[in-house]
Amino acid sequence: MARWQPDARGRLEAAAFELFRERGFEQTTVADIAARASLDKRTFYRLFGDKREALFSGSGRVEEVLVRAVTETDAGPFEAVVAAFRRVAEELFADRLELVRARQAIIESSPELQERELRKSGSLAAAVTAALRARGLDETTATLATESGATVFRVAFARWIAPDSDAPLSDLIAEVAAELRAITSAPNALTSAGPDEPSRRW
Amino acid sequence: MARWQPDARGRLEAAAFELFRERGFEQTTVADIAARASLDKRTFYRLFGDKREALFSGSGRVEEVLVRAVTETDAGPFEAVVAAFRRVAEELFADRLELVRARQAIIESSPELQERELRKSGSLAAAVTAALRARGLDETTATLATESGATVFRVAFARWIAPDSDAPLSDLIAEVAAELRAITSAPNALTSAGPDEPSRRW
Repeated sequence: MARWQPDARGRLEAAAFELFRERGFEQTTVADIAARASLDKRTFYRLFGDKREALFSGSGRVEEVLVRAVTETDAGPFEAVVAAFRRVAEELFADRLELVRARQAIIESSPELQERELRKSGSLAAAVTAALRARGLDETTATLATESGATVFRVAFARWIAPDSDAPLSDLIAEVAAELRAITSAPNALTSAGPDEPSRRW
Repeated sequence: MARWQPDARGRLEAAAFELFRERGFEQTTVADIAARASLDKRTFYRLFGDKREALFSGSGRVEEVLVRAVTETDAGPFEAVVAAFRRVAEELFADRLELVRARQAIIESSPELQERELRKSGSLAAAVTAALRARGLDETTATLATESGATVFRVAFARWIAPDSDAPLSDLIAEVAAELRAITSAPNALTSAGPDEPSRRW
């Protein structure tokens, strides 16, 4: 076998994912993952900081798509973030519902993985906020747009991976964004303005 | 000295806070905390699960105030959550800026404490969402209102504890809520509707 391994990273990620599904995250060792990929532990540690990391390399691609999308648009900040998450849904998640469900089940099985996911979400949010700041938006606006967009994404994502779901993630993101708009637009939802009244600005 | 100790919990919390400030969180042991409070380690562990917990007992009171506030109002869901956070600001945080800053500095010094804070925020959010659900709101609306309100609170809180801040937290919450409303109300902030146009409903 040649010493140089094409796509060692991809093979290790696939092996880790298979083994986490088959045996569970806790029961899988780095040695198991390397063996399944016909590589050695040294190669694993050269490419990933730890066992958890093999499940999170996709977050680099998510960040790229999000940052590019909010940078290339003229839309308002909240719109820009929602559109960016819709682009992620279309470019990275469409047609992968079963894989995403399986991955989510692995994450939910382990507090360590949940913790890593929270940290990854935090650094994604920081990158999106920085990209909005680079467009000249102030810190508060950039943070609010990022966090609101991320909330919309989380809620839509939870609906998408629910057992009885069948709508595309991108459509769910648009629906949930509309719902957030409706909730925040009326100073009091029980006495909300009719369509002919002027828009309220609190 | 009497065996029964009035307010052992309060004394242990105060001792932990003092020692974390003086020596740092890592350098303080449960034995140190108990000694400072003239109590023993057994009493500490009876009242707190671990060393971190001594810094987070306030979150029970925050949860009580939030849940009561969203339960007792007729306001729309987002308004209700924002008003509830303003009530927390007024009842629990007003006049305590220096203490809150010191506590936040302790939390930021330790990844373990940051992790515990994330978890506490998660369970606060779950309690608020459950209270909104009990008012008859659907899951998505309740989650969006809770998460948006929590985002407003986080941004306002960060402004409040910033070195150059002087506005009351409750006012900052109202301001940031207005800003979130402005960001999400216009489908495109660069072409936002003037005051005479009808309100847009996406």
